[in-house]
Amino acid sequence: MSLFDGIESNVAFYSRLYPAVFNSSEGVYIFDVQNRRYIDFLAGAGSLNYGHNNPILKKKLISYIESNGVTHGLDMMTLAKKEFLSVFHEKILKPRNLSYIVQFTGPTGTNSVEAALKICRNVTGRQNIIAFTNAFHGVTLGSLAVTGGRFYRAAAGVPLNNVFRLPYDGEHDNSFDSINYISEKLTTSNSEIDKPAGVIVEVLQGEGGLNKASIKWLQELQELCKRHGMLLIVDEIQTGCGRTGDFFSFEKARIYPDIVTLAKSLSGYGLPFAVALIKPCYDNWKPGQHNGTFRGNNLAFVTATETFKYYWKNSEFSEAVVHKSLLIKNRLKEITDKYEKHGFQHKGLGMMQGIDFMDGKVVNEICRNAFLKGVIVEPCGPTSNVLKILPPLIIDNSCLHKALDTIADSIDEVINNKMRC
Amino acid sequence: MSLFDGIESNVAFYSRLYPAVFNSSEGVYIFDVQNRRYIDFLAGAGSLNYGHNNPILKKKLISYIESNGVTHGLDMMTLAKKEFLSVFHEKILKPRNLSYIVQFTGPTGTNSVEAALKICRNVTGRQNIIAFTNAFHGVTLGSLAVTGGRFYRAAAGVPLNNVFRLPYDGEHDNSFDSINYISEKLTTSNSEIDKPAGVIVEVLQGEGGLNKASIKWLQELQELCKRHGMLLIVDEIQTGCGRTGDFFSFEKARIYPDIVTLAKSLSGYGLPFAVALIKPCYDNWKPGQHNGTFRGNNLAFVTATETFKYYWKNSEFSEAVVHKSLLIKNRLKEITDKYEKHGFQHKGLGMMQGIDFMDGKVVNEICRNAFLKGVIVEPCGPTSNVLKILPPLIIDNSCLHKALDTIADSIDEVINNKMRC
Amino acid sequence: MSLFDGIESNVAFYSRLYPAVFNSSEGVYIFDVQNRRYIDFLAGAGSLNYGHNNPILKKKLISYIESNGVTHGLDMMTLAKKEFLSVFHEKILKPRNLSYIVQFTGPTGTNSVEAALKICRNVTGRQNIIAFTNAFHGVTLGSLAVTGGRFYRAAAGVPLNNVFRLPYDGEHDNSFDSINYISEKLTTSNSEIDKPAGVIVEVLQGEGGLNKASIKWLQELQELCKRHGMLLIVDEIQTGCGRTGDFFSFEKARIYPDIVTLAKSLSGYGLPFAVALIKPCYDNWKPGQHNGTFRGNNLAFVTATETFKYYWKNSEFSEAVVHKSLLIKNRLKEITDKYEKHGFQHKGLGMMQGIDFMDGKVVNEICRNAFLKGVIVEPCGPTSNVLKILPPLIIDNSCLHKALDTIADSIDEVINNKMRC
Amino acid sequence: MSLFDGIESNVAFYSRLYPAVFNSSEGVYIFDVQNRRYIDFLAGAGSLNYGHNNPILKKKLISYIESNGVTHGLDMMTLAKKEFLSVFHEKILKPRNLSYIVQFTGPTGTNSVEAALKICRNVTGRQNIIAFTNAFHGVTLGSLAVTGGRFYRAAAGVPLNNVFRLPYDGEHDNSFDSINYISEKLTTSNSEIDKPAGVIVEVLQGEGGLNKASIKWLQELQELCKRHGMLLIVDEIQTGCGRTGDFFSFEKARIYPDIVTLAKSLSGYGLPFAVALIKPCYDNWKPGQHNGTFRGNNLAFVTATETFKYYWKNSEFSEAVVHKSLLIKNRLKEITDKYEKHGFQHKGLGMMQGIDFMDGKVVNEICRNAFLKGVIVEPCGPTSNVLKILPPLIIDNSCLHKALDTIADSIDEVINNKMRC
Repeated sequence: MSLFDGIESNVAFYSRLYPAVFNSSEGVYIFDVQNRRYIDFLAGAGSLNYGHNNPILKKKLISYIESNGVTHGLDMMTLAKKEFLSVFHEKILKPRNLSYIVQFTGPTGTNSVEAALKICRNVTGRQNIIAFTNAFHGVTLGSLAVTGGRFYRAAAGVPLNNVFRLPYDGEHDNSFDSINYISEKLTTSNSEIDKPAGVIVEVLQGEGGLNKASIKWLQELQELCKRHGMLLIVDEIQTGCGRTGDFFSFEKARIYPDIVTLAKSLSGYGLPFAVALIKPCYDNWKPGQHNGTFRGNNLAFVTATETFKYYWKNSEFSEAVVHKSLLIKNRLKEITDKYEKHGFQHKGLGMMQGIDFMDGKVVNEICRNAFLKGVIVEPCGPTSNVLKILPPLIIDNSCLHKALDTIADSIDEVINNKMRC
Repeated sequence: MSLFDGIESNVAFYSRLYPAVFNSSEGVYIFDVQNRRYIDFLAGAGSLNYGHNNPILKKKLISYIESNGVTHGLDMMTLAKKEFLSVFHEKILKPRNLSYIVQFTGPTGTNSVEAALKICRNVTGRQNIIAFTNAFHGVTLGSLAVTGGRFYRAAAGVPLNNVFRLPYDGEHDNSFDSINYISEKLTTSNSEIDKPAGVIVEVLQGEGGLNKASIKWLQELQELCKRHGMLLIVDEIQTGCGRTGDFFSFEKARIYPDIVTLAKSLSGYGLPFAVALIKPCYDNWKPGQHNGTFRGNNLAFVTATETFKYYWKNSEFSEAVVHKSLLIKNRLKEITDKYEKHGFQHKGLGMMQGIDFMDGKVVNEICRNAFLKGVIVEPCGPTSNVLKILPPLIIDNSCLHKALDTIADSIDEVINNKMRC
Repeated sequence: MSLFDGIESNVAFYSRLYPAVFNSSEGVYIFDVQNRRYIDFLAGAGSLNYGHNNPILKKKLISYIESNGVTHGLDMMTLAKKEFLSVFHEKILKPRNLSYIVQFTGPTGTNSVEAALKICRNVTGRQNIIAFTNAFHGVTLGSLAVTGGRFYRAAAGVPLNNVFRLPYDGEHDNSFDSINYISEKLTTSNSEIDKPAGVIVEVLQGEGGLNKASIKWLQELQELCKRHGMLLIVDEIQTGCGRTGDFFSFEKARIYPDIVTLAKSLSGYGLPFAVALIKPCYDNWKPGQHNGTFRGNNLAFVTATETFKYYWKNSEFSEAVVHKSLLIKNRLKEITDKYEKHGFQHKGLGMMQGIDFMDGKVVNEICRNAFLKGVIVEPCGPTSNVLKILPPLIIDNSCLHKALDTIADSIDEVINNKMRC
Repeated sequence: MSLFDGIESNVAFYSRLYPAVFNSSEGVYIFDVQNRRYIDFLAGAGSLNYGHNNPILKKKLISYIESNGVTHGLDMMTLAKKEFLSVFHEKILKPRNLSYIVQFTGPTGTNSVEAALKICRNVTGRQNIIAFTNAFHGVTLGSLAVTGGRFYRAAAGVPLNNVFRLPYDGEHDNSFDSINYISEKLTTSNSEIDKPAGVIVEVLQGEGGLNKASIKWLQELQELCKRHGMLLIVDEIQTGCGRTGDFFSFEKARIYPDIVTLAKSLSGYGLPFAVALIKPCYDNWKPGQHNGTFRGNNLAFVTATETFKYYWKNSEFSEAVVHKSLLIKNRLKEITDKYEKHGFQHKGLGMMQGIDFMDGKVVNEICRNAFLKGVIVEPCGPTSNVLKILPPLIIDNSCLHKALDTIADSIDEVINNKMRC
């Protein structure tokens, strides 16, 4: 491992949390060079919903490469793109009654967010964006401005501005009704909120600690946006592609965002790929005005198309996720119940749940312990206070139970050990 | 083609310039669905230095995928990354006496630039960056601030700041010595340039119209940076990986930039991949402070490693590029000589040359004409005034001649037709 | 009056509210060219605490001018300045156990605020300032950024940034504990509030609608500032110089702000004059770094000195203000009691009280009505919803009653008239 | 003098340069507490064009105060304001064929600049302002952004943005034609200058080192503004009110700026007073949107009116300034001729001239020396390299000669002393 020190930048993070050199991976498993097997409950930070090197996608990918399909095509038209657009429309948008235009942004989530913010500002001619506490939307300067964490923001080295920050739903002991507050402010002719171009929100805050917005709150937020000519961006980068059961996490709320950002699991194979979905009336881009060398990753088109065809042809996959979500919930509740007096809290929904231990050190210890036992799992939340369970969605029940057993053991050991001191 | 309208965003650019649906590609060729063959002198905007679907890289890529090598690994350690770092060090850095630390940023050039700018600001505690006229560094907000073009900048919808803009070397009829000007300003205790954190520069401005900086100017710029504690960023995103003959375009100037950004042709296969190279003393990142889901594209590691092993094991590849560069230069000079009275100017160097026709309409017509004749070539420069010749570096002489013949014909037709009117 | 249209800018405001051409003034009275007499309950927006053309100050002023005392002295030392500093120290600071350094900023409140913000940022090396909803601190760009009203902010034409906005004490139905909220955020290692350089607050928001901060809230705010190395600025521009009974409105809260801004009634005679009071440890200005042509208004030094000597030599003046404040409060309560079912609310404290009618149109009508009856009084609050009673402090009880009678009549007429419709 | 240390802020500047406590003043003279007499060639940094305590103005001022004329009137209509507007129109604007609307901004130059910048931005809907090297326009954040000096800018503690900086006419050895450069950039559809809202320029840079713009350059600048819909602001704060012979320094160039800022000598008596003059078509302010407590300084109206009546009734005053300017020029040329081999350069025009000694230490020593000999004179320029002669315009020839003799002696002593070492 010494090779990486002094050659790779200090900025590397997960290599410290999981100090192994990995080699191969398959489904829910990842193997290190000593052939140790780990169950991967990090899943590429949500990029591997369909598992590592999913064989269905793999087959299509290799076949495309072998046939010399266009790999790099900028934003030229290709057959692979055509197929992607057509199947995405057919399998995802149409059944949900959504009529989005697809923008192929640079191949990573933050680029999709940058594009979404530009659209809001250009469409409205306003500059201010409403963003929420504990939000994470990326680290390029535009996205970083709407991201909440001071740790990330401080690295900018310049002020990050043109954003009005509001408490997320339920933040701060539910004492503050953000929507009502903004609503009043925007209605008052002379309040301090500069007319916002848009609002960016996550239905479930992944990085922020698995906080979830209520359906009512999301609906009111959409209403507010309509009333004040603001565009509503829903960031589905981590929550999208089935993570919460539905393809989009906003479906339950029956809202229809003006812009949706997708990335992470979109390709299904862990390939860099991101899009912004835009209501047709807001697609007022001039050709080429938001560009990027890798905005047409054709290999990703191929695997993404296959995910829609295979996993989203009917409701089976979705229902399985819901079922496994319940299983996870029950297991985690058992743990919070067991340690009731500690006040640990269950967080999240879908296959993106966790426990708030209110102490980053504890969570880090649990993760280290689990890693030694063969499960990769990571902390999230403002002080790394939340243990985040993020398995590939294709995991089977037995493996899920096994990994949750291991995590439960890791928790017990850390808590008991800590209590003894 | 009607499929793409109303489904893909208006932002698409190249699909308008080259109205065909492409299907497969190999080496210098790209084929559309009617199996028409085009010589690709756009080369993924410089991402395909080693040609489309290069067979040497392809073999390694398929083999890695077949063996279930880790595809998506965040910034965890993997064997593929280890190999990449080791071979990059051995074949590229060491022979050039460069001791850079590698930061795996998000997988596209702009993300590497965002990281580089943050480093400058964090290392120096200053905020201002010196950037040059006609520069292009990307469209996420941090990179966009140092990018010159008003067209791109206007799309931000917010002011882009913390940048001091200076004329690039030779800009404005050479009447202005930028280095001398800044130098005087920085030495004067009370000038208007807020102390800069760094300077970002391209050795050869791709998007900006193939303007090149002289060796003397680059050396003076480095000297200036040292004198005033500013970090020098050289953006090698388009010029790197052999485009100008050397691996880095700055080699001829014998400078040693503090930070180098690489992307585009780094993977060799057109896969999304970008890095920032940082002098060890400036790698003061905190773990995780600049992140991104696709910062460890292992497929790209595999193909990139192979490019170093195969193309950069000795000087052959480099020498071939120099030879072909001369060939291109001679052919382009023939054209400018032929139309001497029009004052067209030869631009660029290496395999990144062109002709300034001083009229965007003319260049666009030439490109359309060439496309009909089977050559893909694009305009660049502030008013699309420069025809940009950017072939895959692996092109053979005969194909190069053939394509240049076609381009020469296209030019003749457009110019003559235009003159007739 | 036609003279002013087309010669003076549209920006003029009070000339529309009070459509008369004024000529002379004395004490609480102002006279128009038809020699109509008005009781002035606007008092130069708080600049005339000691009344118009106060005879005690006037005598000193004329005598100084006649003797050719230095009128304009930039920031050179003058006898008049020496006297001002010495008497201000003796009569105001020393008895209150305050050890402030005096900075003579440009001669208007906003300039004092600009200086205060610079100090916070330079002392801490941070950029973010916490400001509150409904705050008003001036309209030059630095002050405007911390000012709340969208009406004013929109005029900037550029984004106003580096400010984190929080609800003022009691804002939004008391449902939100701002101090607790910030405290939690600043203690959390990775929250969204970029480390603040300072906090700027009014003890009683004049322009914002006569909202007052509780003693407890102010004390907690000071505590918070200490804990996080932030400087506390109290803006006493409108509340200072006895307006609330004490010389500084913060005295009751027994806090000791790091910086205090003073202007408006500081000269006592309505002459342009502003200072920033700075704790000695934070006075790290370099000579000349914050300048301004009129930063040494010697005429103002002369009259200000006399206000300290005459009105602040003992507690008489202060006690009279307290007494009259009670009188005002009782009279206003009578009105709110009378219209109890309308839910009008009493606001403010000291001689800066009013009634919230929750409807800007009503308040404007009341003001117009009162003007016709010979009392000048203005609206304040985010929707001009608050009638603001701001008499010269030197008013006698009988005149105070008389004016309040007139105002009560005006209210009755407007309310009854409105109810009838 | 010890009184001022530890009581007045470190920010004080002139009190260090001229370490005396001043007491009274009259015409060109200022007296300290020991009754030492100094000839004042600083003249309130240009605020005392008509001399200290000018007896003609003084008479009017005292009479107004004695009659209880309104002193403080916010922006209400007063007889004094009416008279000011009427006489300003009659004596200044009309004879020069200028139809400006008058905005009474806060009572100091920087506030007038802040208003002017807002107007540009609001009228055009653009944000970028073109400003020049070595410019000084004030230190509140809006004005500071267009000010050139890093010393002042650094004190902001936040980035100062939305400004594109260009070399002033003749800057940098005349090697750079700024107008031509901007013109080309603005005409190019995709250059790096974000569409500017306006340009702010001084005809003669006071603080910046007495650099003057040529008539041709100013005319071209006006032309450029018209062509690109940018507003032209001429900052006449120091150069106005006769300083260069004409009332406005731009008159010689026969341009008609869209906005003119005036302050300093406008009141004539050293009283805080500033206005922005606006072409009627650009006066689109909403009432009250740019406010300020001291925006109606009625005492200043009275004295300003008298300056127009007395000094600008005919061309006598103006001609006398021209005559004295020539006298100053000849005397300064004698000095630069005498020290020809040192390469000292004559700078400036009108009664705002000086010598560039290319060394701040030398100029500071000359100033200190002159002060000991009874003449107050100050340095200017980016490194305090220029000795600045700024006498009251009402000085008589004999006194002017006497002071210039003293300055010449001071120079000789410093230069000879320096040469001897």
